[in-house]
Amino acid sequence: MSSIRHALNVTREGDFAQWYQAVIAEADMAEESGVRGCMVIKPWGYGIWERMQKLLDIEIKATGHENCYFPLFIPLSFFEKEAEHVEGFAKEMAVVTHHRLIPNGKGGLMPDPEAKLEEPLVVRPTSETVIGAAMSRWVQSWRDLPLLTNQWANVVRWEMRTRMFLRTSEFLWQEGHTAHADKTDAMEETMRMLEVYRAFAEGPLAMPVIAGEKPENERFPGADATYSIEAMMQDGKALQAGTSHYLGTSFAEAAGIRYQDREGQQATCHTTSWGVSTRMIGGVIMVHGDDDGLRVPPQIAPHQIVILPMLRENEGDDALLAYCEEVRRALAGQSALGEPIRVHLDKRAGKATGKRWAWVKKGVPLILEIGGRDAEASQVSVLRRDRLWRDDGKPDFRGEPRETFIAGAAAELEAIQAGLFTEAKSRRDRQIVRGVDSFEALSAMFSESEKTPGWAQVAWSAPSGAALDAVVAKLKSLKLTIRNTPLGAPAPSGMCMFTGQPATQTIYVARTY
Amino acid sequence: MSSIRHALNVTREGDFAQWYQAVIAEADMAEESGVRGCMVIKPWGYGIWERMQKLLDIEIKATGHENCYFPLFIPLSFFEKEAEHVEGFAKEMAVVTHHRLIPNGKGGLMPDPEAKLEEPLVVRPTSETVIGAAMSRWVQSWRDLPLLTNQWANVVRWEMRTRMFLRTSEFLWQEGHTAHADKTDAMEETMRMLEVYRAFAEGPLAMPVIAGEKPENERFPGADATYSIEAMMQDGKALQAGTSHYLGTSFAEAAGIRYQDREGQQATCHTTSWGVSTRMIGGVIMVHGDDDGLRVPPQIAPHQIVILPMLRENEGDDALLAYCEEVRRALAGQSALGEPIRVHLDKRAGKATGKRWAWVKKGVPLILEIGGRDAEASQVSVLRRDRLWRDDGKPDFRGEPRETFIAGAAAELEAIQAGLFTEAKSRRDRQIVRGVDSFEALSAMFSESEKTPGWAQVAWSAPSGAALDAVVAKLKSLKLTIRNTPLGAPAPSGMCMFTGQPATQTIYVARTY
Repeated sequence: MSSIRHALNVTREGDFAQWYQAVIAEADMAEESGVRGCMVIKPWGYGIWERMQKLLDIEIKATGHENCYFPLFIPLSFFEKEAEHVEGFAKEMAVVTHHRLIPNGKGGLMPDPEAKLEEPLVVRPTSETVIGAAMSRWVQSWRDLPLLTNQWANVVRWEMRTRMFLRTSEFLWQEGHTAHADKTDAMEETMRMLEVYRAFAEGPLAMPVIAGEKPENERFPGADATYSIEAMMQDGKALQAGTSHYLGTSFAEAAGIRYQDREGQQATCHTTSWGVSTRMIGGVIMVHGDDDGLRVPPQIAPHQIVILPMLRENEGDDALLAYCEEVRRALAGQSALGEPIRVHLDKRAGKATGKRWAWVKKGVPLILEIGGRDAEASQVSVLRRDRLWRDDGKPDFRGEPRETFIAGAAAELEAIQAGLFTEAKSRRDRQIVRGVDSFEALSAMFSESEKTPGWAQVAWSAPSGAALDAVVAKLKSLKLTIRNTPLGAPAPSGMCMFTGQPATQTIYVARTY
Repeated sequence: MSSIRHALNVTREGDFAQWYQAVIAEADMAEESGVRGCMVIKPWGYGIWERMQKLLDIEIKATGHENCYFPLFIPLSFFEKEAEHVEGFAKEMAVVTHHRLIPNGKGGLMPDPEAKLEEPLVVRPTSETVIGAAMSRWVQSWRDLPLLTNQWANVVRWEMRTRMFLRTSEFLWQEGHTAHADKTDAMEETMRMLEVYRAFAEGPLAMPVIAGEKPENERFPGADATYSIEAMMQDGKALQAGTSHYLGTSFAEAAGIRYQDREGQQATCHTTSWGVSTRMIGGVIMVHGDDDGLRVPPQIAPHQIVILPMLRENEGDDALLAYCEEVRRALAGQSALGEPIRVHLDKRAGKATGKRWAWVKKGVPLILEIGGRDAEASQVSVLRRDRLWRDDGKPDFRGEPRETFIAGAAAELEAIQAGLFTEAKSRRDRQIVRGVDSFEALSAMFSESEKTPGWAQVAWSAPSGAALDAVVAKLKSLKLTIRNTPLGAPAPSGMCMFTGQPATQTIYVARTY
């Protein structure tokens, strides 16, 4: 295997952080914008986001939610209403203070001191407060409940250290916001959307996740309970890939979301919110990428199959292109994974091998290279992105009659989708260390090497308040965090390694992005 | 006809501006947000926007463009580079000056003086400058051209007087940005996208438009030429519903978008930009709405058919709902206007007549009311939104065997789509006054009554500079503006009413939104 010359010049093993940046650059997904903390999402990265949006939006609508659009700007006074939320969020945010620019007398521009806003506006870091204000107008009676809304939007959280897709000052996301008559209904919604996220991650993204409840210290500011899906990256670290919050009545009280119940009494709503973002793209890179670049699960691949004609810039090219177009049309007429196959014929000038490696690095599931002789023999030459190399270090092309390939294309895409999930899940499960029953064992696990060995599954007594703070501090000394308490895990036996009390819950402990 | 009791309590004839607000409120499309100049787009309004996005995005991609995402924030220095653009835009904009909030000592929050940005950031009013900076990185050689990008995004232009959908501080739009090797190619692109907009307006929106070039004084700041589509509202005013700009080389020079041509020489790109926004929704309201509320063209209707079971809250309801569900499924299995029919079964509790009028006001093209006797007789009762009233002032329901309705549903939706266009076009054409050949005639036309009689078609000599300013000032005295010079209009004869020179072009003169 040592004879393989990989498409990237940095490996996951060599330097995972650099490898991550290399995948993004070589797959042409995004780049720094020149605007502090903001990235430009390029067509291939944005195309993956469009696929995610499309598939998740279907699920959001199927569960009864309607899309709306709320203002980008939130007046400070809205933000000040919910105390814990302010504490948690009112730190690093973009603040609009002026509404006009004037010449600065030096050939440039400056904010007009005459156009200072009476009340500064915050660029939304999340929209609970402004949506809460709308809900207080919309909800009058129990008949208006549940109120199920969602928006797709950009949000801004001023970040000091940014990393593309994972942590940028501006990012794209969806945020669901719902109001309910009581806790039971709101908790059902919270768990329903957590399950939508789990199924979305493990389905279209082929990314295994652990769904569970975050510990108290990791709750969304102002929430009564926060749930997450957590994915393991190939470097053993965790990525929180989506969250669903039961907000209790605190936001509803702050915004005045009240209703008349069936008995004619005024009552306060229970609300939820839940969101996933472009951060998921970072997760897909770090779960599925390899030393040749990105591998995109077929369900979210903008192109599932790319056809590369081996053009020779001679009179044979027309016939070759006509043949490739026939293959393209036959594939596009079929369905895989519940949708028409997305196939792209790359007619650009340039060497076929150069184009091949560009598509490999972008992670297209299937690449067809077709030359004049293939066309004459009604053949195609197939390269599977998930099985790129032969043992002799050459790309593992397989020649196949065109009709055979076309007939099997849907099944092959489905197999790749399933295979990526299985591969990621086996790796994840291998890297979860169970039965770590003392802090010494935990320390040993995470100090043996510079690499992160994976996650530790630990039993604890679920302390709160100061006792929890002590646990968090202790874990911090090992650069560890509590990820979540997985749903449905059996109650553990034994003692809590932190408190010495009887253990009541299982948690995952890990380093994190 | 006087016996008709319309669903709105204000008519177009009575007070058009109030009627417009009433349609938006009664159709539950949008509302004031409590944040200055920003609206909340509610599910029905946002659903129409999603339909517009979906259909236009297909055309944008079919013409070779790829979607990207660029930063919300633009550093002042980017903005200062293109002088004319600064002049035109650097007036009313939201300016971010701080990146942190701290307690203000009075229980509230304030921008942290320690967290003042060295360089203020403008919330994008449009993205030529920040996309130009990216293009300067992406374009190296003639092989990289044309570079065809688009983004769907929110933008902010601080507005003093706002009107929902038509003029809000924040709005949603798409903005296409392209770079080309030469003027010919850039002009072809400019005109191609103008035509895409024309076809989109006249197709899915059923909104007749005049495509043409804006006069020099109405050009986009920094552009060499600006083209628009102009629609006539039912009050006779014009709405600019989309623009396409040939930017020449000025933005490319400011941003350094240069390439090596086939001969190895460095050359400057020619760029274009083009956009349409949520403003189009305002156009749809004012072109198609009537005294009973909105009428949505079937192609952009979130629901094309709504089924209303006449529930009685008794044991017959189950059978009725089962029948309605059968009708729904049969309709959803068919296609109209190139897509599966979008049909909604409204099972909510509440009186059928109340629900009927809510859907009428939302403008659903076809409403089916189905009662127990209809179900027994395999019938449906159909109300067409575009032919709502009988001469006796009653809603014009028609009873029909269910199979007859289902078999004809696609054709009926297509007829409604076509009918709305024809109706709007006849009205528009009636309200264009041709042969207005003196300023006195123009004055007479627009001062005869308080109502705007429509547009005047006028021949002029296309003056520029100070001579054009004089024309603009003269028109302003009548509250008139020049809309555009229609494409392909034959050269006029006679003299220019403004300059006394021989006329060279036809223009439309109108009051405007």
